[in-house]
Amino acid sequence: MIESVSIEQSRAVLLVRKPYISKGLVIYMNSVIFGQGYVASILNVGLQRIKDGEIGLEGIPLGNSISKTMEDIKIVGAFDLDKKKIGKNLGEVTKDYWDGNIKFDDDYIIEEGYRDNRERGNIDLEGELERLTDIYKRKDAEIFVNTITTESFEPFAEEKEFLRRIKENDFKRISPVQFYFYSVMEYDRPSVFINCIPTMIANDPAMVKMAEEREKVIFGDDGATGATPLTTDILEHLKERRRKIMSICQFNIGGNNDFLSLTEPERNISKERTKAGVVKDILGYEVPTYIKPTGYLEPLGDNKFVSMLIPYVSFNEAIDEITVNMRVNDSPALAGNIVDLIRLGEICLERGEYGAIYPINAFYMKMPGPIEKAAIAKIKAFELLEEWLFEGDNISGGERKET
Amino acid sequence: MIESVSIEQSRAVLLVRKPYISKGLVIYMNSVIFGQGYVASILNVGLQRIKDGEIGLEGIPLGNSISKTMEDIKIVGAFDLDKKKIGKNLGEVTKDYWDGNIKFDDDYIIEEGYRDNRERGNIDLEGELERLTDIYKRKDAEIFVNTITTESFEPFAEEKEFLRRIKENDFKRISPVQFYFYSVMEYDRPSVFINCIPTMIANDPAMVKMAEEREKVIFGDDGATGATPLTTDILEHLKERRRKIMSICQFNIGGNNDFLSLTEPERNISKERTKAGVVKDILGYEVPTYIKPTGYLEPLGDNKFVSMLIPYVSFNEAIDEITVNMRVNDSPALAGNIVDLIRLGEICLERGEYGAIYPINAFYMKMPGPIEKAAIAKIKAFELLEEWLFEGDNISGGERKET
Amino acid sequence: MIESVSIEQSRAVLLVRKPYISKGLVIYMNSVIFGQGYVASILNVGLQRIKDGEIGLEGIPLGNSISKTMEDIKIVGAFDLDKKKIGKNLGEVTKDYWDGNIKFDDDYIIEEGYRDNRERGNIDLEGELERLTDIYKRKDAEIFVNTITTESFEPFAEEKEFLRRIKENDFKRISPVQFYFYSVMEYDRPSVFINCIPTMIANDPAMVKMAEEREKVIFGDDGATGATPLTTDILEHLKERRRKIMSICQFNIGGNNDFLSLTEPERNISKERTKAGVVKDILGYEVPTYIKPTGYLEPLGDNKFVSMLIPYVSFNEAIDEITVNMRVNDSPALAGNIVDLIRLGEICLERGEYGAIYPINAFYMKMPGPIEKAAIAKIKAFELLEEWLFEGDNISGGERKET
Amino acid sequence: MIESVSIEQSRAVLLVRKPYISKGLVIYMNSVIFGQGYVASILNVGLQRIKDGEIGLEGIPLGNSISKTMEDIKIVGAFDLDKKKIGKNLGEVTKDYWDGNIKFDDDYIIEEGYRDNRERGNIDLEGELERLTDIYKRKDAEIFVNTITTESFEPFAEEKEFLRRIKENDFKRISPVQFYFYSVMEYDRPSVFINCIPTMIANDPAMVKMAEEREKVIFGDDGATGATPLTTDILEHLKERRRKIMSICQFNIGGNNDFLSLTEPERNISKERTKAGVVKDILGYEVPTYIKPTGYLEPLGDNKFVSMLIPYVSFNEAIDEITVNMRVNDSPALAGNIVDLIRLGEICLERGEYGAIYPINAFYMKMPGPIEKAAIAKIKAFELLEEWLFEGDNISGGERKET
Repeated sequence: MIESVSIEQSRAVLLVRKPYISKGLVIYMNSVIFGQGYVASILNVGLQRIKDGEIGLEGIPLGNSISKTMEDIKIVGAFDLDKKKIGKNLGEVTKDYWDGNIKFDDDYIIEEGYRDNRERGNIDLEGELERLTDIYKRKDAEIFVNTITTESFEPFAEEKEFLRRIKENDFKRISPVQFYFYSVMEYDRPSVFINCIPTMIANDPAMVKMAEEREKVIFGDDGATGATPLTTDILEHLKERRRKIMSICQFNIGGNNDFLSLTEPERNISKERTKAGVVKDILGYEVPTYIKPTGYLEPLGDNKFVSMLIPYVSFNEAIDEITVNMRVNDSPALAGNIVDLIRLGEICLERGEYGAIYPINAFYMKMPGPIEKAAIAKIKAFELLEEWLFEGDNISGGERKET
Repeated sequence: MIESVSIEQSRAVLLVRKPYISKGLVIYMNSVIFGQGYVASILNVGLQRIKDGEIGLEGIPLGNSISKTMEDIKIVGAFDLDKKKIGKNLGEVTKDYWDGNIKFDDDYIIEEGYRDNRERGNIDLEGELERLTDIYKRKDAEIFVNTITTESFEPFAEEKEFLRRIKENDFKRISPVQFYFYSVMEYDRPSVFINCIPTMIANDPAMVKMAEEREKVIFGDDGATGATPLTTDILEHLKERRRKIMSICQFNIGGNNDFLSLTEPERNISKERTKAGVVKDILGYEVPTYIKPTGYLEPLGDNKFVSMLIPYVSFNEAIDEITVNMRVNDSPALAGNIVDLIRLGEICLERGEYGAIYPINAFYMKMPGPIEKAAIAKIKAFELLEEWLFEGDNISGGERKET
Repeated sequence: MIESVSIEQSRAVLLVRKPYISKGLVIYMNSVIFGQGYVASILNVGLQRIKDGEIGLEGIPLGNSISKTMEDIKIVGAFDLDKKKIGKNLGEVTKDYWDGNIKFDDDYIIEEGYRDNRERGNIDLEGELERLTDIYKRKDAEIFVNTITTESFEPFAEEKEFLRRIKENDFKRISPVQFYFYSVMEYDRPSVFINCIPTMIANDPAMVKMAEEREKVIFGDDGATGATPLTTDILEHLKERRRKIMSICQFNIGGNNDFLSLTEPERNISKERTKAGVVKDILGYEVPTYIKPTGYLEPLGDNKFVSMLIPYVSFNEAIDEITVNMRVNDSPALAGNIVDLIRLGEICLERGEYGAIYPINAFYMKMPGPIEKAAIAKIKAFELLEEWLFEGDNISGGERKET
Repeated sequence: MIESVSIEQSRAVLLVRKPYISKGLVIYMNSVIFGQGYVASILNVGLQRIKDGEIGLEGIPLGNSISKTMEDIKIVGAFDLDKKKIGKNLGEVTKDYWDGNIKFDDDYIIEEGYRDNRERGNIDLEGELERLTDIYKRKDAEIFVNTITTESFEPFAEEKEFLRRIKENDFKRISPVQFYFYSVMEYDRPSVFINCIPTMIANDPAMVKMAEEREKVIFGDDGATGATPLTTDILEHLKERRRKIMSICQFNIGGNNDFLSLTEPERNISKERTKAGVVKDILGYEVPTYIKPTGYLEPLGDNKFVSMLIPYVSFNEAIDEITVNMRVNDSPALAGNIVDLIRLGEICLERGEYGAIYPINAFYMKMPGPIEKAAIAKIKAFELLEEWLFEGDNISGGERKET
């Protein structure tokens, strides 16, 4: 393993003098996580086990087919609000999510995150901003992964409005994800914000505009795992056969924090609205749907249960029916995608592509931003992703095609 | 409705003088069916109901998006072996498969088909050939749809060998489908053979060579309906996420003739072998599978039950599981596809494309011929089909894009 | 068919002089329905078709095994609130629920029901009571079937309290079902109240006490149809094998009025609480459960979709899993039970058994009253029912054992 | 723990002088297993872990509710044909079936079993008999558990015929299970033969007669695990609602030896025939069924997949449908039942009840012997079992009712 330099140094080098690459300069993808919960911990564990040669690349869509390797991903820090985690080592915290013995190459200490003060309390946004960005700098971070628990939020649409509220210290109007995003916008280097939860970031024009102006990449919103991506492909399949879908019912139940929080009515409503739009985008017509996180059942843990019913009309008015039942481990599904998103973020930085990157979001996200873009079936989105990867030049992109 | 001319006349006209089209010359797609069973009868019924404005285009993949319309499809005849059908009118025969009242525009009489004499009996192939082709001529047919019950067979590979056996009147070596195919090859005009059952025609190089030489089109083999096409798309979905499939189990049970016949061991074996290949083609690795028509249960009738289990490894060795249960009306699913295949056959004739047309077979067939081509996921195959359609010139192809 | 007399006359005769029975005196079971919706209409249709010899006894648990016959059930009237139904003939109203042609022997006119004035409005309870009981008398009714849409309610527990509120005309405290029940209590002849919805009647000690004092029979609460009865038997099955159930998840979704109304949060809560109790009653230990009507999806209509997951621990800590998916026509399932309950009500009247009859409720109801009695598995409850039937004397009970 | 005596001694003591029991004399249930495969190994492991206090009594139907305890079960030996097992210690052999570390109290050595010589080969039955019974004596065994892989067989019906064939050394007519059974019959002390596989023993009148004459107990045939017992209860459930079942389809697929062997056609046929009879016994009418072990899929291992479809007619001709999917660990399900059967065998010996004990077989077996007895739903059978248990006197039976 060759000597490492700071990312900023190395990118400067890279952009000016490409040959350095061939001399073996390693650019680590230094990543910081918001929310050291199940997803983040499985991400840490899985990455370490891959580096240790213990497991394969299952669940990482792009695997070894692109130039960026798992070995060069470095998770360098995380923020959380749980008193039992703050100040603890990663190794200690992951014990709650993973039974095996594991030693982390980068055993960071969990930092205190930005606390939601919208209901009650008080906070100085300016001070918080400084606190956070100081940590980013200290960690030499450039990639930020948001995996905090689903929150309520109100999009801004207008950049001006967002900045005004920040300036006025109007913390009652700003959700934690919006503030984390803002802190990354204020961080003075090109960087990547990966939003894995339903808060609209890649779908909020205010945020996308800001990112474009400030050389930031947005991947979002809401990591596409579980039943929804599969549903899009089943819908595409039925549509291509011109089968008329009569209704779609999709139940989801699990025992992790996300399901616990989603049972709060106001969070759920936003989620339901979004999914119905995806169906229309793909099929081209409206279908009555019931698609939403349905309930919380603690013993299921992270291994959620999904049940889906799709009745449709076939030729000569025959009525068919598809029922799908799934048991899906939620956090590994998302963590595997994040391994790609970190690497794709790095490629965007190298290419100098900023804003909400639709060809990536379309595949990895439930609500692919920017908002003006439609949702498409995931098999279609994967083709977009492949095109995007190979249209890049040879330094940055997908030159290493798996054999 | 304008005056009709014989197909042969009109094609001659068409190939020489395209302007005639714009004057409203209608070319009917005169089609003949081998096996007037469930599929054929539902095809007849559904087409008539569409013409009568009674039902929509559900279950017909290309719907109104291509230039050939349902109105111009004419089913002009059918062959069957059932004494209770031969000599009867179509209207009478379809009563066994469809409850509603229906009056057919073309109420043909069922002809006696080619009888399988391999086990015992005797037949003069030369005489049969003449008998069949005479009927084809009389009916002015150009499109031939094979929907007979699944049969045992042995492919030929070598055209010479096939022709030699025919010449020697070796009816013990030749399956009914192979003979029907031969009769179409000997029929002295460009025509289309659509093979909806597992007998290898598009996958037998002997047959494909003959078709190319004799200006014939082959669509085949084994119409892709039911669970198999959906499975290909689910596999593609999982593969794109690099989830490692541990095994695939797919049960099929129904109460129609096809299930009854498939319970005969030697027919089943050929089917199982084929499907395992499809899995490997799509995933790129071998997976233990159990995929086959499993049993016969009379009360299920044409509405088969499918049950499928797909366990797979996700990120960090998490094990997920997808279970799919389907109730699918088998015959309408195939009949809807045949509506497209007849029209696509006509387009091939107009374009002068002969042999096994892979971009069409890949979507509509379980074992898309020619044999050297791999099976691909159906969503991928649909893209091939769309490309093929729109690469044609404006007379023949898919110029009418649905809005 | 022999001459009919009024029920009151005939019962008087019966109780004094049993021999009359043997001379062929027919006692009709004159029944009145609250809520002429899906269930009531299917009940009317199904009963008529049985009388017409058109269909069999499928879905009627006791079939012909007891002395009371379907032929002697007479539905003589119904109350509803829908302006489009009031004043209309039964034949007209059932057209919305059943496509076939049908002529009713008793084609009554729908009466206006008791209107819920709890939210706003005003009503004179005394006047309503008189209005309702006058109709009961006119119809010579003795059996009352409550099938109105699920409502919110508060049980009373104390008879005194209930009567006080009635006296004070406190219509804001009294739910429609409670008032219907009260009207039957005030009706001056022995009669039967069959409560097919979740409002606590058989489970409200106030109501049970009143019924016992006034020679009334209560069957309730909440007709056991759909997945819940099956679940009780599956739980009993697992318990007898000492398999430790880890959690139970049961989704229900449908498109009828009941699902529409159950999506209102406060109605749902009461339902969820009850079901968890049933699980504990049967298993003997607490299990985390999610069992409730989950959503409304209009195109499903009356044919609801149920999905259930039951993971459990087997010998040597092996973990097994049962998934059940059901498509159940809700209203026929309940209507078939009501055919029994009307006849069992008549038997109670003949036997002079009043109050909440547990051996009947245990089988037919989700929350079998009285409240102090536990829920038991349905196969167990059926045995109770059989014992109860055959312990009666020969006039009233189950003397006709099916052969 | 008090001093142990030989079983023969202690039973003599017991039968004559009951008070000894109260002084703490322990009678061990010395058991021998035919077939040290998955079931036997999980039985060994689970029992040891219970004794070690490591796991609970999940999956053992009677748990602690009867007087015989798990602690007093001693597995003292096993026979197998696998060269890799014969002569090895139990601890070594179970490593193939169980990952954990375990130390057996009774770490016996696997003996060579009776080898099937029906296809080819030669064997001296007399010599084999002596060899086996010598081992039984040496082990002081009294309970024999048959868990060998499913075999083909022909029942005898006549005891005389069976004994004649043995005498004539006609090993081509005698299946291994029949010979093992014979060896137990010739063993000169009261003992128990528990037949967990489909070979007809409890259902062969020849065998039952012999057992009665020779003071032997038979439990059989074919241990009721997996989907079949659940199906019986679901059928009973539907029957009690008079729902008319249209057909039953039940697929089973697994990756253990039993599934491997059942794919051999002639074994499968016998199994299918039997199950259809069970359906008729319970429902009282014939239903078209497809119920059988369907296939072998190695990666599923012992965790089989079951898929079941039951469509039925409800009231007013409504058609409902139940689909059940199960993942069941086959061997633990059977092993848990064997823990009961060993203890129930001991109770039979104490009570002096010999032959095929129907109240026990009805619950634990798929084909409960004797043959003249019908199959009944399992919830019904459990009641029979409970009655049988508590009709016994206080020494032998179920006096310890769990609280």
